[in-house]
Amino acid sequence: MPFPAPLTGVIPPVCTPLTPDREVDVPSLLRLVDHLLDGGVDALFVLGSSAETAHLTDRQRAVVVESVVAHVAGQVPLLAGAIDMTTPRVLDHVAYVTRAGADAVVVTAPFYTRTHPAEIARHYRLVAHRSPVPVVAYDIPVSVHVKLGPELVLELAADGTLAGLKDSSGDLAGLRAVVAGVRTRPALTEFSALTGSELVVDSALALGADGAVPGLANVDPAGYVRLDRLCRAGDWDAARAEQERLCALYGMVGVGDPARMGASSSALGAFKAALHLRGVIACPATAEPQVPLTQEEREGVGKHLAAAGLL
Amino acid sequence: MPFPAPLTGVIPPVCTPLTPDREVDVPSLLRLVDHLLDGGVDALFVLGSSAETAHLTDRQRAVVVESVVAHVAGQVPLLAGAIDMTTPRVLDHVAYVTRAGADAVVVTAPFYTRTHPAEIARHYRLVAHRSPVPVVAYDIPVSVHVKLGPELVLELAADGTLAGLKDSSGDLAGLRAVVAGVRTRPALTEFSALTGSELVVDSALALGADGAVPGLANVDPAGYVRLDRLCRAGDWDAARAEQERLCALYGMVGVGDPARMGASSSALGAFKAALHLRGVIACPATAEPQVPLTQEEREGVGKHLAAAGLL
Amino acid sequence: MPFPAPLTGVIPPVCTPLTPDREVDVPSLLRLVDHLLDGGVDALFVLGSSAETAHLTDRQRAVVVESVVAHVAGQVPLLAGAIDMTTPRVLDHVAYVTRAGADAVVVTAPFYTRTHPAEIARHYRLVAHRSPVPVVAYDIPVSVHVKLGPELVLELAADGTLAGLKDSSGDLAGLRAVVAGVRTRPALTEFSALTGSELVVDSALALGADGAVPGLANVDPAGYVRLDRLCRAGDWDAARAEQERLCALYGMVGVGDPARMGASSSALGAFKAALHLRGVIACPATAEPQVPLTQEEREGVGKHLAAAGLL
Amino acid sequence: MPFPAPLTGVIPPVCTPLTPDREVDVPSLLRLVDHLLDGGVDALFVLGSSAETAHLTDRQRAVVVESVVAHVAGQVPLLAGAIDMTTPRVLDHVAYVTRAGADAVVVTAPFYTRTHPAEIARHYRLVAHRSPVPVVAYDIPVSVHVKLGPELVLELAADGTLAGLKDSSGDLAGLRAVVAGVRTRPALTEFSALTGSELVVDSALALGADGAVPGLANVDPAGYVRLDRLCRAGDWDAARAEQERLCALYGMVGVGDPARMGASSSALGAFKAALHLRGVIACPATAEPQVPLTQEEREGVGKHLAAAGLL
Repeated sequence: MPFPAPLTGVIPPVCTPLTPDREVDVPSLLRLVDHLLDGGVDALFVLGSSAETAHLTDRQRAVVVESVVAHVAGQVPLLAGAIDMTTPRVLDHVAYVTRAGADAVVVTAPFYTRTHPAEIARHYRLVAHRSPVPVVAYDIPVSVHVKLGPELVLELAADGTLAGLKDSSGDLAGLRAVVAGVRTRPALTEFSALTGSELVVDSALALGADGAVPGLANVDPAGYVRLDRLCRAGDWDAARAEQERLCALYGMVGVGDPARMGASSSALGAFKAALHLRGVIACPATAEPQVPLTQEEREGVGKHLAAAGLL
Repeated sequence: MPFPAPLTGVIPPVCTPLTPDREVDVPSLLRLVDHLLDGGVDALFVLGSSAETAHLTDRQRAVVVESVVAHVAGQVPLLAGAIDMTTPRVLDHVAYVTRAGADAVVVTAPFYTRTHPAEIARHYRLVAHRSPVPVVAYDIPVSVHVKLGPELVLELAADGTLAGLKDSSGDLAGLRAVVAGVRTRPALTEFSALTGSELVVDSALALGADGAVPGLANVDPAGYVRLDRLCRAGDWDAARAEQERLCALYGMVGVGDPARMGASSSALGAFKAALHLRGVIACPATAEPQVPLTQEEREGVGKHLAAAGLL
Repeated sequence: MPFPAPLTGVIPPVCTPLTPDREVDVPSLLRLVDHLLDGGVDALFVLGSSAETAHLTDRQRAVVVESVVAHVAGQVPLLAGAIDMTTPRVLDHVAYVTRAGADAVVVTAPFYTRTHPAEIARHYRLVAHRSPVPVVAYDIPVSVHVKLGPELVLELAADGTLAGLKDSSGDLAGLRAVVAGVRTRPALTEFSALTGSELVVDSALALGADGAVPGLANVDPAGYVRLDRLCRAGDWDAARAEQERLCALYGMVGVGDPARMGASSSALGAFKAALHLRGVIACPATAEPQVPLTQEEREGVGKHLAAAGLL
Repeated sequence: MPFPAPLTGVIPPVCTPLTPDREVDVPSLLRLVDHLLDGGVDALFVLGSSAETAHLTDRQRAVVVESVVAHVAGQVPLLAGAIDMTTPRVLDHVAYVTRAGADAVVVTAPFYTRTHPAEIARHYRLVAHRSPVPVVAYDIPVSVHVKLGPELVLELAADGTLAGLKDSSGDLAGLRAVVAGVRTRPALTEFSALTGSELVVDSALALGADGAVPGLANVDPAGYVRLDRLCRAGDWDAARAEQERLCALYGMVGVGDPARMGASSSALGAFKAALHLRGVIACPATAEPQVPLTQEEREGVGKHLAAAGLL
């Protein structure tokens, strides 16, 4: 389906359920997609960071995008990550996710290699030139170790390179600068400014962002859809209450013992434990080399679900 | 051939010559290999950072390792990088480079994803368990954004996970701690402690490192071999003079205008311009999205070559 | 006067006007204070980062706080920074600013020295134990290179160490966590959660922050006061419009040529040029070793003022 | 006494012994100075990082420099740190340490404020212009969060601003670039290139550094003097053995539990515990807010001393 211009609403970065031996669990993945569509989400984003894309082989990535495209069958727009170190490798991912039917690709700045803003611009221009579908920039400094400045994003939007931005930088002032820049340029009315935050979706929408891509929406898609609709209705008090409920739920990402595992193991382990406890996926396994949550830590996730009324 | 225990001497991280349309230029690659072997190097390392591995597609990486394995035909040990974000993706690279005949694999800590020391240890143990050849850890914080601590390296050496370390961290005190730890553990006599520096090879060998993996050895392999032999002979004054000549030559990495490109574009562009000027490779192109050197900047490389007696 | 509990509204971090030979220009400072009070601000914060406190000698700092205390004479609460590397040095600053009459002190985590959360907690507890007035934590990772986590802030609030937080980290989700934690603890109803941002004051107030400490309020205090009042009235559309006007005005911080100066020189140079152009201060000089704006760059500041209706 | 040109040998950064209530323990300080002079050191550096200068009040700093100047009475050159955030504050420290009789001042780049290379150059030029004694640049990125590039150091050496460099960056290749640049400029024969490392003193001297400023020399001055003399004699094997003994001794900095304290608390706590165990100082207290070592951790220091033959 054509990529909306702009894309609005809730676009969950779909988790990738795995079997106990770490293969893609397609039936669970499709149940998760149904769970999200039932929650009312506006689009889906596969192969993002919450999908553990950095941990999936190319074969596994292809299985994910092909399975979800076939299952969704155009009900909502489908964005796919094309996450790799540099332009030539990203283009390989763009090729198979678009061949499979993705409606847009989501691409970070180069990483592993050190980059200059001129090289980042060159990267996006080359990707956009070769991509058959729109390109959304993915600003995620915690992974890429560089921040996409608003000026660079607006320059690449103005020349038609970028169709949107998923801002997972935590820098709301920077997102505001992009939103303001888009608004003052008539040619950019189709640009999609999306926040990747779970915790300040109401703030982002209030200042003019088009939508949100929160990892926690895997666990509670209906909650984020409610939040989005309240914001669109201008009911800011109710929106804030819903956002605060979701912030409390997000506390689950801290269940893992920091002496034993990193923040990604804990956060993705918690999302998957929650989906398992909610009966959506068959197995809470995360990809290697992430450290699994203990039984006790998974019970901690259950307490967060219960407190949020989700069990 | 069996991986030496320990590996010693000069092990150039072989550059990957490209055609003007950015395909692997196999004839140039093989000429470069001959140039290095003629220079007397002790082993070869393909698909490292100097090889622009982050910029090569899987297909291109396979071409590189297959071409070089066939050409070298066991004359010297061949190490191959298996550079990717996490364990499952690294294992895919390990599979094809070892199937092609690499004698050892060189593996970084996970990147893009945030990691904990426990996850890095788990990563290396899983890779070593599945690799048919020895695993060398590649410590390169400028790319991976984490430093491998000496304690972690020694722990993974002691349990047989790691056969060696390529230390590109610039932290000579850390390399010394590894060397000291290796010496005090009789079971580790086969461990290879290698520096990735171009600039303090004499210092590293003086404190007990086994060998060096300097990118600049692409340009002047004979110089680094001379340096290595002088160090082994204990002729420290002559070694220092040779090292200082190589340090001056290394100044070529600064030819690129920092207002127009990043440090990688400049350094790798300079190495390739030098190889082109020396008649080793057919084309100085670097991979996308790196910014090419100008004609004037390439002439600056020529001046460095001339000053070092290499033109 | 007693420190409000909580402190709300607009609390400008008062710039420190300098003479051409870099002494404190007391008449200009007092005119600036009047300009701020005329703008309707709720409190004043002297010796913060916008005051170039890092550049002021102890003698100059004393002049600032003594002059302002005498001039304000209790009309509004007066906060004073006690910015130094570690506890013993901070305590010296606490002593003279409170002797002069400051109503609260604003204190960062230790810097220059490397710190552990336990040491940061110890630091604040020692400072609070010795300070005759309330202590507000100043979270400014760009200067201190450490982030105060919400858990640490709440722990130090709960035991009475901290009376408030000035959050200049740019991490709105973290500020939200503090606000949420304060709300759920009845004993913390007096805690003041303040944003140091110029650009997302509306967002911060919407999610429950008590007030704002924006450097740009030196230039346009009435604008920030209007913004604060609109937020308190729940008129979010008008608030957003006012915030966006201020965001555009804030663009002045980019007038300095980044090839010639750092971001602080440009931003503080712009604020002072604006105050000079508006006739508030006699000289736009910034403290050493900051690079002064050129005449052309100062004219750029004037254009920002004109566009915002302030000239 | 005139500052040597260049300064060579071992220049310990003198620790600052404290009483149990954290005042400067002058008798212990003077015993420490005698211990260092007895060890044969070539100069003394007070008010450096190992002196906990970041933790000393101005009054305490003055006591240190005045006491040591009077006690040393010109037997060896005396360098004094003038460690503060920016030029005006640094100049205040320069004034009292030189009035007291310091033979040179040691100055970092500005910190807390964000800086540009042009601002760092301006800072050093202003300080040198006002300092009655030579200025040595102190490159310590772990504290200052900026690295002094070799080009900048050489530029400031060439114009007479800097008399030397204390390189505590851990970047031996950078120190080598400074040494090489000094050697090729006849006007710079008096420039002193000093390493701040404890662990690669032999490497630094081998590549041409003039001297070393190792914190651990407080504990074992005779060991570092022996190391220096062996290096000067070109007896590299014996030098390496001595350096390795000192590296093992340096292991004491890791005695502190990282769950309970930061690296500075542990390292400075260990140095002071060692000096206390060796009978040099009366009390092992470190300055606030550092966390003290436990009795058991101090016993761990004793084991390191015993293993090194120092108890």
